[in-house]
Amino acid sequence: MKIEGRNSVYELLKMDKEIDKVLVQKDLKDEASKRLINIIRSNKVKVQLVDKYVIEKESESKRSQGFIAFVSDYKYFEIEDVIDACKDKDGFIVILNEILDPHNLGSIIRVCECAGVDGLIIGKDRSASVNDTVMRISAGALNHVKVCRVTNINNSIDYLKKNGYWVYGAEIGGEQIYKANLTGKLCLVIGGEDSGVKRLTKEKCDGIVSIPMFGKVNSLNASVACGVAVYEAVRQRISK
Amino acid sequence: MKIEGRNSVYELLKMDKEIDKVLVQKDLKDEASKRLINIIRSNKVKVQLVDKYVIEKESESKRSQGFIAFVSDYKYFEIEDVIDACKDKDGFIVILNEILDPHNLGSIIRVCECAGVDGLIIGKDRSASVNDTVMRISAGALNHVKVCRVTNINNSIDYLKKNGYWVYGAEIGGEQIYKANLTGKLCLVIGGEDSGVKRLTKEKCDGIVSIPMFGKVNSLNASVACGVAVYEAVRQRISK
Repeated sequence: MKIEGRNSVYELLKMDKEIDKVLVQKDLKDEASKRLINIIRSNKVKVQLVDKYVIEKESESKRSQGFIAFVSDYKYFEIEDVIDACKDKDGFIVILNEILDPHNLGSIIRVCECAGVDGLIIGKDRSASVNDTVMRISAGALNHVKVCRVTNINNSIDYLKKNGYWVYGAEIGGEQIYKANLTGKLCLVIGGEDSGVKRLTKEKCDGIVSIPMFGKVNSLNASVACGVAVYEAVRQRISK
Repeated sequence: MKIEGRNSVYELLKMDKEIDKVLVQKDLKDEASKRLINIIRSNKVKVQLVDKYVIEKESESKRSQGFIAFVSDYKYFEIEDVIDACKDKDGFIVILNEILDPHNLGSIIRVCECAGVDGLIIGKDRSASVNDTVMRISAGALNHVKVCRVTNINNSIDYLKKNGYWVYGAEIGGEQIYKANLTGKLCLVIGGEDSGVKRLTKEKCDGIVSIPMFGKVNSLNASVACGVAVYEAVRQRISK
């Protein structure tokens, strides 16, 4: 969805809306425009400076004043809804701990859809959120996976544990994943591309499970690692 | 590696070398240059038209005549070497059936490295080959995985079978992968992004194994599917 015009973009920034990026006309010289560009940047929203003809092509209102914001249309779910939907079965939830690359997030959403995961939880900060790239990469899977966005992942883990979920972090240095019991109400925490599962989050987990590694480099892509871990849970759950 | 100059690039095209792309100066007007551009294109090598200053920056010889070819430095292995290296153990080989995306190939090389796969076989035609992108994405794993490039994958399957390998195609509509026996001398055939495992190749396989799917879209990224299948084999092989 496009939001156009200086005031509309400014109002948008004050709301808690996911802004993908703001197209800004290159040669704006007036003070109001310069101020808005600074505000956008200080909100850590991506500013893309483009030529006037790009703005004219993209503008639907033809009254953009050189500012067009792209807003995600995705409506996140609430964890409560996910847990509620699983009250008569063993729910299976995946938490992402700072997955930054939208390609990985899109690919992980595909994993969750294929594996029948009941809900996917991502953090508000330091995490890719559902934007156009994620929608495209997820190849339609996004329509069938409940994605929740939370302020604090550690609080979500507490909430899940209170609701009877067993929470495992997938990370090096833990129990071999094939030996862990991944049946029952389950939450798998998948670490980010660089940082893995963060220390505080790890401490919240009931256990750490690891994919065995036999190489010298031993670096799996985050979405592949997620696929391997989630499908080991699937294997145990269907053979139970 | 860079090959520069009209004649050198022409000679390169006649050899069976993997050419990543050819940088060509934009404004070349002479007949010899135009002819060479056509020959490069008819060889299905990517031509990238660039400004003169780019050519000048990239040229090492300073005698490029506006043509700089980028050649892969990767030296492929022979299947015979892979099989020979596994003669005292149960070898584990992965064949890719028309994986086209270099990102997927790079990610699959990482899977194979982590999982301790002994050799990866790709086809010469209709397949991503080892180029700069693959090297970058593989994140160093390429140095520790034996990649073989063959003219005909079906002949390779015959050869592997003769050498005692059990060949499984990973594809929808087969036996659930968790029920198949993936121990012993094993070859897994992974299908391409769009086409999956081709009909003739499937017929060559000893069996077809499938990752269970519980969603509506049910489309796993090729490298994720490879990760799940390869790691199920790993699970069986280490718990044997």
